[in-house]
Amino acid sequence: MTTFSCLTFLTDFGLEDGFVAACHGVALRIAPAIPVIDITHLVPPGDVRRGAAVLAQTVPSMPLAVHVAVVDPGVGTARRAIAVQARDGILVGPDNGVLSWAVAALGGAVRAVQLTNGDLWNHPVAPTFHGRDIFMPVAARLAAGLDIGEAGTEVAAAGLVALAPPTSRMLDGEAEGEVLSVDRFGNVQLSIPSSAAAELGIALGDSLIIRCNRRELNAPYVETFGSAAPGELIAFTDSAGLISLAVSSGNAAERLSLPPGARVRIAADLPA
Amino acid sequence: MTTFSCLTFLTDFGLEDGFVAACHGVALRIAPAIPVIDITHLVPPGDVRRGAAVLAQTVPSMPLAVHVAVVDPGVGTARRAIAVQARDGILVGPDNGVLSWAVAALGGAVRAVQLTNGDLWNHPVAPTFHGRDIFMPVAARLAAGLDIGEAGTEVAAAGLVALAPPTSRMLDGEAEGEVLSVDRFGNVQLSIPSSAAAELGIALGDSLIIRCNRRELNAPYVETFGSAAPGELIAFTDSAGLISLAVSSGNAAERLSLPPGARVRIAADLPA
Amino acid sequence: MTTFSCLTFLTDFGLEDGFVAACHGVALRIAPAIPVIDITHLVPPGDVRRGAAVLAQTVPSMPLAVHVAVVDPGVGTARRAIAVQARDGILVGPDNGVLSWAVAALGGAVRAVQLTNGDLWNHPVAPTFHGRDIFMPVAARLAAGLDIGEAGTEVAAAGLVALAPPTSRMLDGEAEGEVLSVDRFGNVQLSIPSSAAAELGIALGDSLIIRCNRRELNAPYVETFGSAAPGELIAFTDSAGLISLAVSSGNAAERLSLPPGARVRIAADLPA
Repeated sequence: MTTFSCLTFLTDFGLEDGFVAACHGVALRIAPAIPVIDITHLVPPGDVRRGAAVLAQTVPSMPLAVHVAVVDPGVGTARRAIAVQARDGILVGPDNGVLSWAVAALGGAVRAVQLTNGDLWNHPVAPTFHGRDIFMPVAARLAAGLDIGEAGTEVAAAGLVALAPPTSRMLDGEAEGEVLSVDRFGNVQLSIPSSAAAELGIALGDSLIIRCNRRELNAPYVETFGSAAPGELIAFTDSAGLISLAVSSGNAAERLSLPPGARVRIAADLPA
Repeated sequence: MTTFSCLTFLTDFGLEDGFVAACHGVALRIAPAIPVIDITHLVPPGDVRRGAAVLAQTVPSMPLAVHVAVVDPGVGTARRAIAVQARDGILVGPDNGVLSWAVAALGGAVRAVQLTNGDLWNHPVAPTFHGRDIFMPVAARLAAGLDIGEAGTEVAAAGLVALAPPTSRMLDGEAEGEVLSVDRFGNVQLSIPSSAAAELGIALGDSLIIRCNRRELNAPYVETFGSAAPGELIAFTDSAGLISLAVSSGNAAERLSLPPGARVRIAADLPA
Repeated sequence: MTTFSCLTFLTDFGLEDGFVAACHGVALRIAPAIPVIDITHLVPPGDVRRGAAVLAQTVPSMPLAVHVAVVDPGVGTARRAIAVQARDGILVGPDNGVLSWAVAALGGAVRAVQLTNGDLWNHPVAPTFHGRDIFMPVAARLAAGLDIGEAGTEVAAAGLVALAPPTSRMLDGEAEGEVLSVDRFGNVQLSIPSSAAAELGIALGDSLIIRCNRRELNAPYVETFGSAAPGELIAFTDSAGLISLAVSSGNAAERLSLPPGARVRIAADLPA
């Protein structure tokens, strides 16, 4: 039997109500020996793409776990509830794509089930609170050792809803991508992997050109923002391996007007 | 001896300071084997009624616990510190009503004591931080098995401060209530139980009339907001069994200008 | 071998991303039996002084612990990563002063090491995320019993970066200090210890004069704000032993325009 170290928990429930705590209570009742690590509960309401991005970037730091993600604007509709056995963990949540990038980050789907075994749920199930009444009770039982096959009907992993991956492409000496996320510091994470910098011939210490919002800016490509002068715009490879933009002691997302989804291109800043 | 699965903890301390953590440290020192589940610490400062509502709606999802709630604008005054043995758990906090709805939700008070046994407290007691120095140390000892009678002087449960319950009444083909709380999604929870809909002859799929702020609106009474069109106003029974209003992919509290306490009436939308 | 009850964790990472959770995952992997208490993750980005103040005021409430604090605007630069053995606990973080006040609060430094033993780190180390890859893995190993000498090279405790302590001085019948922190309630904590009130001959119940922003205000010096009338300005000794200003049911920091760092003087309000 696989032994899971913890449950992890990501939602858009916020921290002002008792919703997150209710789910913790359910988990404690079912699997008292399994700790729950909260990833975040501040995903903007209904923002499946943001939830998927945070989840996928966090799960690789976790020990073997059952990951529960509930960003679920379609709660109570026909969207399926699923559990996915990935190579390096199990994921539980709505089949709306919120799990899809994390499944890939954990080595891909090995097996998937639709959660149809109501014996595992809290009854009566509140139509608007599947986190408490379906997802967490099932996840806690899986973390405690229940075989995923007991949770419901096997479904084809290839048929699960998958979010389109953040696009990134190389074209004519440029790498084009989008803003994947903006963190608390205003750092702008692009969907451009650090390998693109190498392909473009950009090395640490080089200058690069950033094209966005019809502007063209220059920034050094450095190892870390600690070495920049206050107010300086820099580019670096972040802790997820993606090229990111920051303003030292400032907020790059605000300075450059770059919300999630905005298009950005980078290129080497070659001598004229 | 009763065995408690956890402590739960609700306050208005916020998350920016170390106040919550100091209480966690105290609990860990006294009862290292008892986990603490944070319900919320974002009750608006001093909002006893909001604290009472969140607590009462969350405790039913918890395993057998000692629940600590500190929303205490009168800290250090003559208001009593109490522990209440309810049928399904123990509650600890100031005697200002913050516990009262949760006591009812846990089956009613069986026994109550005023916390007068100073041997259980942290000394010196800070006059402005009874959460750390009185409530949590007493609660942690109760969770670890101390008899509630050891915490202080027995008092009459009927004499405890109780908040007036949210009002709801049936009149002339209408149910009248108030906004009990607004959650992160802007969903408006009314003090009208779902049984009132049945009494009014409103079934799932029917249309109902909402009267508030001198306006009259129509909304379908549905099982869940997932099925509504974006921007559509709907009514549904929430996870606490109360009639609630939501705007799909929107914010009902803002749209309808309905803060906590606002009066709302609902009625069946009968064919003319 | 010393036995630690927990890890504590303070950062400026915020709660919207998965950064805090990633560190929890690392700790759980290395030291599954050691709980982690979050102090706060809402230190304003890069505000080392605020982080130091919250940490120092919270650690005395903790059982014997390894305290991890990451407010680290210089991550990835030449600033050292350190572990400090204090009399009453171990502290781990960047050598930028964020630990310094807490070291003092825990009885002073007994021994310090620069974290140079890369065998304890997560590899590859992300240049922008030493919290996950250096500080937490080292701290978790220390909490699990590793001798601090194994973490790196011994350095002189006297050579560590120390923040200038908040100033407070007695002059001519006045105590002068600065705003050390403002909590969620808008309470203004001064760097003036309660002993200064005694020196100035101010007793509980007396009136005192507050001079700030070219204004002069009067306030009673009371035991707790619970006894004040709504809207009344009061002074009291807070749970950290420092003189603080509050407005009952209001926000003193806003009313008096007193952000952290602002100068304030207090004096006895003597009969003319």
